[in-house]
Amino acid sequence: MKNQFDTILLGHGSGGKLSHDLISELFAKHFDNDILRQQSDSAIIENPGNQLAFTTDSFVVDPIFFPGGDIGKLAIAGTVNDLAVSGAIPEYLSVGFIIEEGFGFKDLERIVITMADEAKKAGVKIVTGDTKVVDRGKCDKVFINSSGIGILDKKDTHIISGSRIKVGDQIIINGSIGDHGMAVMAARNELNITADISSDCACLHKMIGSAMEASSQIKFMRDATRGGLGTVIAELAKGKDFGIHIHEDQLIVNDGVRGICELLGFDPIYVANEGKVVMVVAAEDAQHVMKALKKHETGKNAAIIGEITGDHKGKAWLETQVGGKRIIEMLSGQQLPRIC
Amino acid sequence: MKNQFDTILLGHGSGGKLSHDLISELFAKHFDNDILRQQSDSAIIENPGNQLAFTTDSFVVDPIFFPGGDIGKLAIAGTVNDLAVSGAIPEYLSVGFIIEEGFGFKDLERIVITMADEAKKAGVKIVTGDTKVVDRGKCDKVFINSSGIGILDKKDTHIISGSRIKVGDQIIINGSIGDHGMAVMAARNELNITADISSDCACLHKMIGSAMEASSQIKFMRDATRGGLGTVIAELAKGKDFGIHIHEDQLIVNDGVRGICELLGFDPIYVANEGKVVMVVAAEDAQHVMKALKKHETGKNAAIIGEITGDHKGKAWLETQVGGKRIIEMLSGQQLPRIC
Repeated sequence: MKNQFDTILLGHGSGGKLSHDLISELFAKHFDNDILRQQSDSAIIENPGNQLAFTTDSFVVDPIFFPGGDIGKLAIAGTVNDLAVSGAIPEYLSVGFIIEEGFGFKDLERIVITMADEAKKAGVKIVTGDTKVVDRGKCDKVFINSSGIGILDKKDTHIISGSRIKVGDQIIINGSIGDHGMAVMAARNELNITADISSDCACLHKMIGSAMEASSQIKFMRDATRGGLGTVIAELAKGKDFGIHIHEDQLIVNDGVRGICELLGFDPIYVANEGKVVMVVAAEDAQHVMKALKKHETGKNAAIIGEITGDHKGKAWLETQVGGKRIIEMLSGQQLPRIC
Repeated sequence: MKNQFDTILLGHGSGGKLSHDLISELFAKHFDNDILRQQSDSAIIENPGNQLAFTTDSFVVDPIFFPGGDIGKLAIAGTVNDLAVSGAIPEYLSVGFIIEEGFGFKDLERIVITMADEAKKAGVKIVTGDTKVVDRGKCDKVFINSSGIGILDKKDTHIISGSRIKVGDQIIINGSIGDHGMAVMAARNELNITADISSDCACLHKMIGSAMEASSQIKFMRDATRGGLGTVIAELAKGKDFGIHIHEDQLIVNDGVRGICELLGFDPIYVANEGKVVMVVAAEDAQHVMKALKKHETGKNAAIIGEITGDHKGKAWLETQVGGKRIIEMLSGQQLPRIC
């Protein structure tokens, strides 16, 4: 973009000429595709298929840049993953920016380029968008909403409800826990922590696609974001006629993550991930799914971490490394604000 | 909701138990429908049709309550209207809340109830959502993103591009201009203006549906929101092989709106509307469309305000009440921040 603005002005959200310039010289330039090029208030999508998945997420992470990603990568990956865990193939995204007056144009451009790259790699199109600018001090740099549409080929909607889960099914996660939350915490200036931690922020739909090809017995999937693994399994067990048993010694917690968790008093089981999916898979297919996951970089450390049990109905519980038992409740109260 | 919280806490955005309670006791309660009830990260939509419209908008209006509406009504109407002007029937909405820590629960509930009522009246379903909470001072009360999916029955995508517009076509708007922008301005405490002005914020899809039934010769539609009527017609004319001629004496500007505009130095042609659609219609069908619009409360003051001309190509221009001519440029710079 020309030097006409180094920072975002209120006028960039006016709907007039400055908005028009920002759209054409930044968003349209980087996000370019056949549908976005219509430049209409609504994108038109042809032949969307018989069944769609539709999701939305807003991102308010602080700081906006952190080891392993930024708010833009988070927006794309978060939306892609929400669609993928519903069994859908992610196809079309919207992006809505709320920008603070005075935000640096170069930072915005860096985020937009990340989003464009991530969308391209993921094979999804950003087809419609919106930009609002609020006066200085009325938001924090930039917030991004991303909504998404995915296509369900196989009518696998039972994956959402977990209605086919049975005693003996295995619980799989595709790697270490807590990386995203602790990477963001470590990146907060005031904490002054230096640690070798990187967010696991990644699009998982290709890996999930491989797993679904390898087995028709995947009975539940959920990305373990805010609230972490603990909240996913506590929520899944709640009110159900089965229990969920997790083996602590099967959970992978990277050294840096463990270190900060101990320092700050967090339990990694509740710390947010942005590249982790929890799956419930029929026992006979667990090894097929593991093999499919491990073919992908995002799944190379996949592990079977527990199973569905007939006892402890309605509860998720952890068998600790020293052989104790602990009920895993949903995260109560605030743990980590603005982690995504 | 129980008295457990009078205000929104950071924990309501944690993804844990408080988030869960907020969803089940506020959002799920008021927005309830068969798809939302799946309580999944993605809503599943069956048989969506052959062609979809997909749109997104974020709302950051200040103040959040104003005569004629609030931020919630704006979110629903804005998204419904973006779909409707694409020729689509609005069907499914997502809502994403970004809430400031300490925001009053009663205010949030009031907004949610407005949204639920407006969606119900409009015949659209809120099928998926997201809530983030940011620390005090990091946003301004509440911001709402609403994305929407509409269904195109008639493959009327030419309406988006305006590709069939011809010299002689008539320009129609469904009533007075500038009401929304000036109602919001008047509601800002610091201005201390008392005026009898109300936002025109309304869902227009039923009125637009009637117009489309009355004529297959509607060649362009756009809701005249940020940037106002002026920006819509300047954008439409830009680079085209025709001009747009607007008759100032046909424009309706309510007295209160005119008064504040004069006081504050605004040109009503650039002031935001939230219930106005600009249409380009073949001359022979203009009266059919006018009749259809006037059947609706939102269109009772519809007027033919101008026409497509062979001269002044690429420009929109206003014939003033005293017979002068003025080129209508796109709004440049900031006029009214946070009007929607």
